[in-house]
Amino acid sequence: MSDHETPMVNGVVEHKIGEEVLPFVEDEYGGVIVEMTTPTDPKFFVATLRYSFTQWRSQGKKGVWLNLPLSQVNLVEPAVKEGFRYHHAEPTYLMLVYWIPESESTIPLNASHRVRVGAVVLNHNKEEKYGMLRGSGVWKIPTGVVDEGEDIFAAAIREVKEETGIDTEFLEVLAFCQTHESFFVKSDLFFICLLRPTSFDIQKQDLEIEAAQWMPFEDSASQPITHKNELFKVIHRICSLKMEKNYTGFSKKPTTTFFDDKLGYLYLNKQDMNNPIT
Amino acid sequence: MSDHETPMVNGVVEHKIGEEVLPFVEDEYGGVIVEMTTPTDPKFFVATLRYSFTQWRSQGKKGVWLNLPLSQVNLVEPAVKEGFRYHHAEPTYLMLVYWIPESESTIPLNASHRVRVGAVVLNHNKEEKYGMLRGSGVWKIPTGVVDEGEDIFAAAIREVKEETGIDTEFLEVLAFCQTHESFFVKSDLFFICLLRPTSFDIQKQDLEIEAAQWMPFEDSASQPITHKNELFKVIHRICSLKMEKNYTGFSKKPTTTFFDDKLGYLYLNKQDMNNPIT
Repeated sequence: MSDHETPMVNGVVEHKIGEEVLPFVEDEYGGVIVEMTTPTDPKFFVATLRYSFTQWRSQGKKGVWLNLPLSQVNLVEPAVKEGFRYHHAEPTYLMLVYWIPESESTIPLNASHRVRVGAVVLNHNKEEKYGMLRGSGVWKIPTGVVDEGEDIFAAAIREVKEETGIDTEFLEVLAFCQTHESFFVKSDLFFICLLRPTSFDIQKQDLEIEAAQWMPFEDSASQPITHKNELFKVIHRICSLKMEKNYTGFSKKPTTTFFDDKLGYLYLNKQDMNNPIT
Repeated sequence: MSDHETPMVNGVVEHKIGEEVLPFVEDEYGGVIVEMTTPTDPKFFVATLRYSFTQWRSQGKKGVWLNLPLSQVNLVEPAVKEGFRYHHAEPTYLMLVYWIPESESTIPLNASHRVRVGAVVLNHNKEEKYGMLRGSGVWKIPTGVVDEGEDIFAAAIREVKEETGIDTEFLEVLAFCQTHESFFVKSDLFFICLLRPTSFDIQKQDLEIEAAQWMPFEDSASQPITHKNELFKVIHRICSLKMEKNYTGFSKKPTTTFFDDKLGYLYLNKQDMNNPIT
């Protein structure tokens, strides 16, 4: 029997090292995705990987994604030595990638932005604004990070609920701000959302919050930080206009995306969208 | 000489394994950041890491960030076995993290969103819209990914330049769309930008583009895809309103951020900002 024959043992194909292709699924861009879910000997892994590459090359495959769960950390060093590069990581796995063709890589870049929300809750009965105290004696609007898979409007509602216990309804994104190198090399997008309260009893819940209260709009606006900081000043100005119904932000509308008809939310100037075209 | 004395050899302090703290800098949240820049023996690394932890624990340190460049891939497995978890990765390095206190981790989440732009270039002389052909016979607006550290408006200008060679000026974000699981678990933010051309000679540059041309607005809007896809329909409607000056998006304004006075850009309804408060 030559080295390249596959022996049959009791009717089961017994692959020899170097004759087995790693389990993979194809992606829609001519690449393959390998997820190593079971403990694997590094030597067996390397031999199988090399054999797999001979197959993938001959099939004209492009990008090879290699997902190594934390439990398969012993395969990280062999994978890098075989030419893989890091692509991204989450607490429980590391994703590596290898670009086969001679042509320039079209491997998409890693996620580049953190997204945060700040929630302005205006109580129209009392013309008051919701304010927060965090440690330093400064009243601030509730803010927080938007999780992966979380809608911006939902994050704003969640943050207000977490920090103060009140329920709100999303009205508009009043403005947003982009800054860079906010978190290592990552950029930051901060969405300032306007919410309407649907319950009014404040229950401070977040440990990071020292106190929470309804606060007259003019009091929160007259804090020294509002005058010092450009962004605070603009938010105050927008809120003043908003209370007089003289400012329109972007409200939300369910939509489907360009390419894959995925469901999402579009944020746009709905008031102007209702204009007749003259 | 006891095991714990540090011997001097030719005036150079010679640290013994288990008596040296890894080189680190402190972060502003009570944590430390270690970057392993030089080749290190894994056994020495583990011993030094353990000794470092005794120091950091006694100093009340919280998060320990461990930056392992690709060349130090041999330290990934030992670090994970010592209890580190992946935080994020870029092609050339892997960042791991360890949370020392008993209390809940306040380690910030990894970047969660990819950001993309779509550029609508309206040529007001001819009431025409800029359109693109990509393979499939569909005319599309130029789109592309916003790089880390790149401003949204700059990305829109760059994409139009790359795909068509024309120069543009940023006017407004007309709307934006958020979708989920667009790229593995990451979410996607797509900003639809309106640009004004400042040069008009089209030079197709991007290899992915089959053709580029100025296209009458109504022709691009009458493509079947515009009618089929919700997002295309909305963009078309906004552009129609825009040509009649009946829609206001968010324009840009340099600003400084809330907490660290970092320079950034705020996108807001500038037209309404110029309203007098009644």
